[in-house]
Amino acid sequence: MPNYKLTIAYDGTDFHGWQQQENASSIQQIIKKALDTVLRHSTRLIGSGRTDAGVHARGQVAHFHSSTPLKPARVLYSLNALLPATIRLLALEEVSEAFHAQYSAKGKTYHYHLFLGSVMPPTKRLYTWKPFHVVDLLLMKEAAAYFIGTHDFTTFTNKGSASEDPVRTIYSITFVPEEGGVALIFHGSGFLYKMVRNIVGTLVAAGAGRLVPRDIPLLLAKRDRRVAPEGAPPQGLFLHEVHY
Amino acid sequence: MPNYKLTIAYDGTDFHGWQQQENASSIQQIIKKALDTVLRHSTRLIGSGRTDAGVHARGQVAHFHSSTPLKPARVLYSLNALLPATIRLLALEEVSEAFHAQYSAKGKTYHYHLFLGSVMPPTKRLYTWKPFHVVDLLLMKEAAAYFIGTHDFTTFTNKGSASEDPVRTIYSITFVPEEGGVALIFHGSGFLYKMVRNIVGTLVAAGAGRLVPRDIPLLLAKRDRRVAPEGAPPQGLFLHEVHY
Repeated sequence: MPNYKLTIAYDGTDFHGWQQQENASSIQQIIKKALDTVLRHSTRLIGSGRTDAGVHARGQVAHFHSSTPLKPARVLYSLNALLPATIRLLALEEVSEAFHAQYSAKGKTYHYHLFLGSVMPPTKRLYTWKPFHVVDLLLMKEAAAYFIGTHDFTTFTNKGSASEDPVRTIYSITFVPEEGGVALIFHGSGFLYKMVRNIVGTLVAAGAGRLVPRDIPLLLAKRDRRVAPEGAPPQGLFLHEVHY
Repeated sequence: MPNYKLTIAYDGTDFHGWQQQENASSIQQIIKKALDTVLRHSTRLIGSGRTDAGVHARGQVAHFHSSTPLKPARVLYSLNALLPATIRLLALEEVSEAFHAQYSAKGKTYHYHLFLGSVMPPTKRLYTWKPFHVVDLLLMKEAAAYFIGTHDFTTFTNKGSASEDPVRTIYSITFVPEEGGVALIFHGSGFLYKMVRNIVGTLVAAGAGRLVPRDIPLLLAKRDRRVAPEGAPPQGLFLHEVHY
């Protein structure tokens, strides 16, 4: 059966995250329903990974099989016409039978947007986080350096569904200044459940002087979520790109 | 009585505009209610001008009188604590008795954000407008030049409340590229009801080749709203600054 790759952007504000669940509105569920309508048969939509309630995406990826070959441009148009403006499909392309949105992924890029001014602009409130304390970006960068590389990230993940391997590689954490604040760009082999938000919470704690950057290796070594500061809230986080 | 100037930012999405009206939720009304609570007496809150439903502000200005002198920093903090996150007060300062938010204004700056890519990013949908046709920015700039200067803008205003003087001066319309599109920055002596949105609609029509830029002086001369193209929708518009 032909295999298709979808690239998806969404505003996560009003959804209960990517993943299908009972009695809640998920992005996966809404796209699957539109797909079933357009394909005229039921299909499974498999994402690169879940995103939580309130987390946004500029480049989530999912795949599905169709019983018959599709005209991608036409199907993309029909799907976007059925979907709410809070979910937009950016691309649809046929891929090899072997392509799997989750298992074929070689890496991911997430952006976390921090607002660092004194009063949160109302039109940014759903897409950035304003930390409570004033932060020193040099201290945050010093702290970020300790996360680069291959580590057991148990301290920086919340209990997810599966007992998966907690080792991941972070290739880079880049600080890009933007209007009113800074974007933290995480590029890694993959990220555990809530890992980016938990690292951001720790970087902000370091920036606020509530944690000494050189203690981060000790926190990692403890393999215990309770030893590290609170995670950052969802609204600043964007799944920017999945790399294959 | 001491006179105070408030600088205000808001996300206009969920409001029925700035101006107080019966049976509808206005920004003016919500701020006035918070002010009355903090001042412990009823006051009039006078804005620099109204903004429509769905229009945003980064620097709306209003003034009010208090029966007793205030501590601006403390009152600002209390007001923001009472207000929803969709309205933020950026500054509060005592001004001379003669200051009037509307009549003392010497000019205003509005920004209109156009998204020019093929698919509207969900997180920008409430803050930009994606025109239906592909637009040529050079044609838009050519059209914009005809609006600069002092003109009778009757063709570019909708019937507002008062029969006011329709002559205004536009000092500049600047095109600033931004991610995915362009911001049009209008700086003028003042703007009539719906004037910025109506001019944007005409600039976009020119950019789409549906109107010849050199016909704009004829449209202005006709002094008739019906001869010009449809106005642009509210969500791309921000009242950026009021100049005194």
